Amino acid sequence: MKKKILISDIAKDLGISVTTVSFILNDKAKEKRISEGLTKRVLDYVQKVGYKPNELAKSLRTGKTKIIGLVIEDISNPFFANIARLIEAKAYSRGYRIIYCSTDNQPDKAIELIQLFRDRHVDGYIVTPSEGVRDTIESLQHSQLPLVLFDRYIPGLDSNHVITDNVRGAYDATAHLAQQGCRRIAMITLYSAQTQMRDRMNGYMRAIDIYKLQPYVKKVNLHDDEQTVIDDFRAFLEDQQPDAVFFATNYLAIAGLKAIKQYNLPFPAVVSYDDHTLFKLFTPTITAVSQPIEAIASELINILLNQLDGKEKGPKQVMLPSELIIRESSLVQTSSTGS
Amino acid sequence: MKKKILISDIAKDLGISVTTVSFILNDKAKEKRISEGLTKRVLDYVQKVGYKPNELAKSLRTGKTKIIGLVIEDISNPFFANIARLIEAKAYSRGYRIIYCSTDNQPDKAIELIQLFRDRHVDGYIVTPSEGVRDTIESLQHSQLPLVLFDRYIPGLDSNHVITDNVRGAYDATAHLAQQGCRRIAMITLYSAQTQMRDRMNGYMRAIDIYKLQPYVKKVNLHDDEQTVIDDFRAFLEDQQPDAVFFATNYLAIAGLKAIKQYNLPFPAVVSYDDHTLFKLFTPTITAVSQPIEAIASELINILLNQLDGKEKGPKQVMLPSELIIRESSLVQTSSTGS
Repeated sequence: MKKKILISDIAKDLGISVTTVSFILNDKAKEKRISEGLTKRVLDYVQKVGYKPNELAKSLRTGKTKIIGLVIEDISNPFFANIARLIEAKAYSRGYRIIYCSTDNQPDKAIELIQLFRDRHVDGYIVTPSEGVRDTIESLQHSQLPLVLFDRYIPGLDSNHVITDNVRGAYDATAHLAQQGCRRIAMITLYSAQTQMRDRMNGYMRAIDIYKLQPYVKKVNLHDDEQTVIDDFRAFLEDQQPDAVFFATNYLAIAGLKAIKQYNLPFPAVVSYDDHTLFKLFTPTITAVSQPIEAIASELINILLNQLDGKEKGPKQVMLPSELIIRESSLVQTSSTGS
Repeated sequence: MKKKILISDIAKDLGISVTTVSFILNDKAKEKRISEGLTKRVLDYVQKVGYKPNELAKSLRTGKTKIIGLVIEDISNPFFANIARLIEAKAYSRGYRIIYCSTDNQPDKAIELIQLFRDRHVDGYIVTPSEGVRDTIESLQHSQLPLVLFDRYIPGLDSNHVITDNVRGAYDATAHLAQQGCRRIAMITLYSAQTQMRDRMNGYMRAIDIYKLQPYVKKVNLHDDEQTVIDDFRAFLEDQQPDAVFFATNYLAIAGLKAIKQYNLPFPAVVSYDDHTLFKLFTPTITAVSQPIEAIASELINILLNQLDGKEKGPKQVMLPSELIIRESSLVQTSSTGS
């Protein structure tokens, strides 16, 4: 289908020798005393037919592509989409381009996509690791390829990473609900062994311990369709009658809010882990643990580019604070708190 | 920084000849009667050190990479993020990988990113064209590279494209507001010469003509920060006192809803072009012109893969219908409509 244009085609089309074309394309026109007129004619023609001679070969030689591969969980999740956007802008301003793809949190896909980037010889990697990609990540490290993980890390693997303080974020959310007088604070989370989900559970449990409450936990599958999650959540609400719900991700919170709307359920106090640009437009506005996505994107790019420049040697591990943004959904009317 | 592993390194590390390693890596171990034990040892070692010999060279030879380059306007816009996600899944199931990047609607960036994909020898292109990229698109066509445009097209350029019927969508939205008894129906749109924005304006104007109303149009800059848009919109609402507002994109609608909330303004009837997963959770729920993103993604992949397979020759141009989803925000109380 694709007709590959060769130097010989260009030479033939313009009625000059292959050697002359080659000299011009390799910046040797002056050295070889080729006229400016002919040089311009060749370069114009090359641009017109879209001939690009040596980029792949050049990147094979130099090993530099000025491209960073970004492997994220799901581009349709606003948390990842917004981070991707910021990383792209910051990289661009420093002369790097980003190419990205989503793993859908499936290990096979993640492994294959990292390999795809590797085949394209990207200069560095920014990755949200799925479960099961440990070997692939170790292999990148083994080959001394610049790499930063984010959102979660691989326990026991000494890699660069940028995460937020998930334990503290989840603790703050749960403690805030307890301070509002809530006594049956449920957590809705995923079946997941990933560090960020484990840490959010730990933060919730720590607050439950300190406030001497009972835990009510509901786990759902990441890959369940949304209506299943909505129906499961409704059944959980009716069974357990929580007076507050802490959602471990914003898409779980959105499914929960849809369940409340769809089945016209009473509104418990609500906090979502991860903010969403529209939460402050809801009625009630939604309280959220907000991750500092601007700072996350900056740290990721800085660590990676420092490593690319050879400025950074040892693993650099950054944990950023998240912030509880209190809105209407978690503020409980004081009438029932008593004294 | 990156230490490139060569075949000679592998041979040296394992104490065998370069030729032997080369035979094994080129699937000639059996033919050359190399033992299974040694073959396994080499392949295991190659995997361990992450040596990938020939992918780039192979793609130079065959001209096939099984990669599609997706160039979109802004990955943090849910419309594009969701389409990207669907395209990725559909391409994946047919053996293709997607790499993508956002242009931020800046011509220079778009041109450069398309060139970047071209340098990486992607097999095909899916592009939302920014203004000013006509020459670049023509150059791709000239080189007979498989290409489909979407969301908008380049007038006068005979390319593959997939769009929705923007004239009809905007007409339906405006006519619906007129039928609700609204008499001062404003349109909030962008400064833009792109076809999709031009067509939405045409659809709005056609409904204004048919219902014999007066147009009230407010234009904003795509690159203005959100607070500027919010403040501009507030001033426009206070000046013009529209009883209904048709927003030409969902991010304009979101800015408008933020203005109403932030300044506690009276709620006009509202319709947004482009739905949003959270619009049905708002109070009131938001009426939207919904584009068929699943069908758009299917058409894009089908057209591109047919072209890659040589099944499709001439330009294929698809226009899909959009659907007006009526929710609470556009339903006007009947008390003021009279008889």
